[in-house]
Amino acid sequence: MAAQSLDQIVSFCKRRGFIFPGSEIYGGLQGTYDYGPLGVELKNNLKRAWWRHNVYERDDIEGIETSLLTNRYVLRYSGHEKGFSDPLVDNKTTKKRYRLDHLLKDQEPGVLDAIAAHLGIERPDDMDVFVDALLQDTSKAQAALLAAKVVDAQDGKPGDWTEPRQFNLMFKTQVGPVADDESFAYLRPETAQGMFVNFKNVVDSTNRKLPFGIAQTGKSFRNEITPRNFLFRVRELEQMEIEYFVRPGDDEAVHDAWIEDHIEWWVNVVGLKREKIQLFEHVKLAHYSKRTVDILYNFPTLGFDELEGIANRTDWDLGSHSRSQDTLPLSENTKARVMLNEHSVEKLTYFDQPNNQHIVPFVIEPAAGVDRGVLAALCEAYDEELLENGETRIVLRLPAVLAPIKVAVLPLKKNEPTIVETAKKIKKLLQSGGDMRTVYDDTAAIGKLYRRQDEAGTPFCITVDFDTIGRGRDGDTSMENTVTVRHRDSMLQERVAIDDLLHYIKSRIA
Amino acid sequence: MAAQSLDQIVSFCKRRGFIFPGSEIYGGLQGTYDYGPLGVELKNNLKRAWWRHNVYERDDIEGIETSLLTNRYVLRYSGHEKGFSDPLVDNKTTKKRYRLDHLLKDQEPGVLDAIAAHLGIERPDDMDVFVDALLQDTSKAQAALLAAKVVDAQDGKPGDWTEPRQFNLMFKTQVGPVADDESFAYLRPETAQGMFVNFKNVVDSTNRKLPFGIAQTGKSFRNEITPRNFLFRVRELEQMEIEYFVRPGDDEAVHDAWIEDHIEWWVNVVGLKREKIQLFEHVKLAHYSKRTVDILYNFPTLGFDELEGIANRTDWDLGSHSRSQDTLPLSENTKARVMLNEHSVEKLTYFDQPNNQHIVPFVIEPAAGVDRGVLAALCEAYDEELLENGETRIVLRLPAVLAPIKVAVLPLKKNEPTIVETAKKIKKLLQSGGDMRTVYDDTAAIGKLYRRQDEAGTPFCITVDFDTIGRGRDGDTSMENTVTVRHRDSMLQERVAIDDLLHYIKSRIA
Repeated sequence: MAAQSLDQIVSFCKRRGFIFPGSEIYGGLQGTYDYGPLGVELKNNLKRAWWRHNVYERDDIEGIETSLLTNRYVLRYSGHEKGFSDPLVDNKTTKKRYRLDHLLKDQEPGVLDAIAAHLGIERPDDMDVFVDALLQDTSKAQAALLAAKVVDAQDGKPGDWTEPRQFNLMFKTQVGPVADDESFAYLRPETAQGMFVNFKNVVDSTNRKLPFGIAQTGKSFRNEITPRNFLFRVRELEQMEIEYFVRPGDDEAVHDAWIEDHIEWWVNVVGLKREKIQLFEHVKLAHYSKRTVDILYNFPTLGFDELEGIANRTDWDLGSHSRSQDTLPLSENTKARVMLNEHSVEKLTYFDQPNNQHIVPFVIEPAAGVDRGVLAALCEAYDEELLENGETRIVLRLPAVLAPIKVAVLPLKKNEPTIVETAKKIKKLLQSGGDMRTVYDDTAAIGKLYRRQDEAGTPFCITVDFDTIGRGRDGDTSMENTVTVRHRDSMLQERVAIDDLLHYIKSRIA
Repeated sequence: MAAQSLDQIVSFCKRRGFIFPGSEIYGGLQGTYDYGPLGVELKNNLKRAWWRHNVYERDDIEGIETSLLTNRYVLRYSGHEKGFSDPLVDNKTTKKRYRLDHLLKDQEPGVLDAIAAHLGIERPDDMDVFVDALLQDTSKAQAALLAAKVVDAQDGKPGDWTEPRQFNLMFKTQVGPVADDESFAYLRPETAQGMFVNFKNVVDSTNRKLPFGIAQTGKSFRNEITPRNFLFRVRELEQMEIEYFVRPGDDEAVHDAWIEDHIEWWVNVVGLKREKIQLFEHVKLAHYSKRTVDILYNFPTLGFDELEGIANRTDWDLGSHSRSQDTLPLSENTKARVMLNEHSVEKLTYFDQPNNQHIVPFVIEPAAGVDRGVLAALCEAYDEELLENGETRIVLRLPAVLAPIKVAVLPLKKNEPTIVETAKKIKKLLQSGGDMRTVYDDTAAIGKLYRRQDEAGTPFCITVDFDTIGRGRDGDTSMENTVTVRHRDSMLQERVAIDDLLHYIKSRIA
């Protein structure tokens, strides 16, 4: 049986050491989480599998890692200073503050119809469009919220709502020992901008020709008004992003190709079921976007929600970050919108040798959430299985490449010195041969040890028994120097020679 | 010839795409750097080698990854709110601000003697002790700086110095949509605290018995007054830290063992020469420390400076973060110093089953800088070699495990379709088989391609030639389906069968 709710996953993650609330002994820090011993391995394995697919196994991507503290002008000309905000409203009665779209999502349909009626519009299916309609006249919006009796979940009663207003989501911090209005930096709200501002550096140091991409994984920060839903909406998140640069005109086909490629990655590598994935075509587009498609996953409790967004950012970013913009061959639709740049010292163009001209490449951006990926992998893998003997086991059916622990070595008897010694030797053998997490455990009976590894998602358990040490039943020595390999999902066991073990395991976890 | 100066390394790093200044197109953001295509691989390889040595290859360490945004109380009871500061002084003439110890380090010995004479003390060898002496009376310190004519490097003249004062180095940021004095968090100044506050979570989810450790790699932030020396003193840094918990009384021997173990790691894995490493025994100890020993590396320009600090933090951190401190069996020396905790909800003790009592473990902390490790690896590996033909090549003699690119496949002739096709096939073969960076390059003559890979530190170049495709000189087909493997350091070449290549490479890069 799959996980029935997100809460079930949350408590499982805490108990088994996947994920803990941040700063927990001081009452937490809302919207932050810590990855525990199993969680950090799962997360690193997911990032590594992504890097392998997108950097190592392709010929057209360069990796990079840019700093989190970011010069304010980077975020001015990316459009974030002006536009990276969410509408919020306050309930004067409960003193609670909400993101307007979150508040609306939690209302009954009749309430939403009443708001639309008050505005004199048909209720839009798309929440972004609905919110936009409300924000066109914030005093009218306030009246609509009040008239429709929009409920505050805090006390379950219609709230005394303020006018909605825009709240910028970027974290700021003072940099250097002089405290003045100019000496601050932003914590980056996305990894993307670090790649745009390094476009020239990458081209100059690698000699790349179009099309090519830059990939990055790393932390980003968003001062969410209402962090919620566990890892799903947090203030400190990790991203896996690619900026893929193409000739204008090639953008639409390349966009489609990335969508297909990444759906396949989530299915084939992360193990998500294809039928639990949907695409969402954005109706309301961000300021930089010509088209954006989200890859959604069907999370327990939350339903279908975003794992990855894949946007056609056109030539907007390179254009906006460039000096001498009047000399750039920008596409017609960005020329009108590009931000007038007074601070950049670099012209972010690409010299197209075959055509002997400078061009501004278009950008396709596949941008996935690491934490959401971890959460999806956990939700997909979590299974409560009813066994023949009537007991239930929890088993995490993670793909081996993502499993935190690859192999556990278990002695059948902990008070039999030869068995224990042999088991420890095998553990050393596996450990020395591979860049992987292996464990030795003798702190319980074998059945309990198996359950423990099932919950951790460990694909292979190796049991050292009397046969291994040449003391099989009735003096049988035929299985000396072999061990039992027990498979997590099927619980089937097979006999493997100790000498073959390392190869056996390594060939099944790559 | 090794690198003669840090500047040489800085410009090499920029040119070849190892490291770029952060936010460069907007004039930079002091104390931040971006890792380019080669740099990100080197850095990730270093972190992975560290994780492998300290987590995968040991049986007593759990990994973890905690959030960067940190509840203020974590940093209050760690002692950072009060004590994590540097003394700064201003020159009223030039308006420049300096860290007092940095300013003093840049003075001639005679100036330092004059300061000491003014204070009426013998000049201390240890700079920390000297600064402490100055800070005991800041108005007297000011007088001493003026009397000794301490020079400002900015204009080369004696400065008009202010009184020194303490400046807290933590970055703060407002969290949540309410801007008040209470709603802020810190960017963590060290990864250590995330491990202390999760002590119970890790013990509860893993059932660990003493001694055991928690390991973490990740970003930390320090608002340095004068960031300088490239990656060496930055505002955004990355750390690799272990908190190793032991029974009180076992701490001193374990401390010595970690120092030995990590010296060996820097030498055997990172490839630093033993004679370029020194130990530094701290004279002035931090508030939490019983003993601290630094591992220093001899950097060009900088001389011997810190790579890693290994401290005995006693039971100070767990004690200070604990509730009900009066019931804790703290050691005598921490009882007097521990911070009175009014906010923690958790008792951070360990139940010692054999002795049936709760104890507060002591902590040994090996804390290394990732960026400094990258810099040391680069400085050690950089070599300008005079060749027999009188030319000079730059070669980066990195250990294979750290090399950004493991193998480059190069066609001898790019206008010979069979050679090009075979080379591309070999690239695919190597790429598919391994979690490693491989490149194909045909954009120059073979000699130039070798030089390019030498600079990148690529240990193996594979050349596909006429012999490979069965068209050797005089119709010789004996070397069909073999390639030349060319070794970076020796430049020697050998012939290897294509079928053996993947194994050949993989067995030499682990």
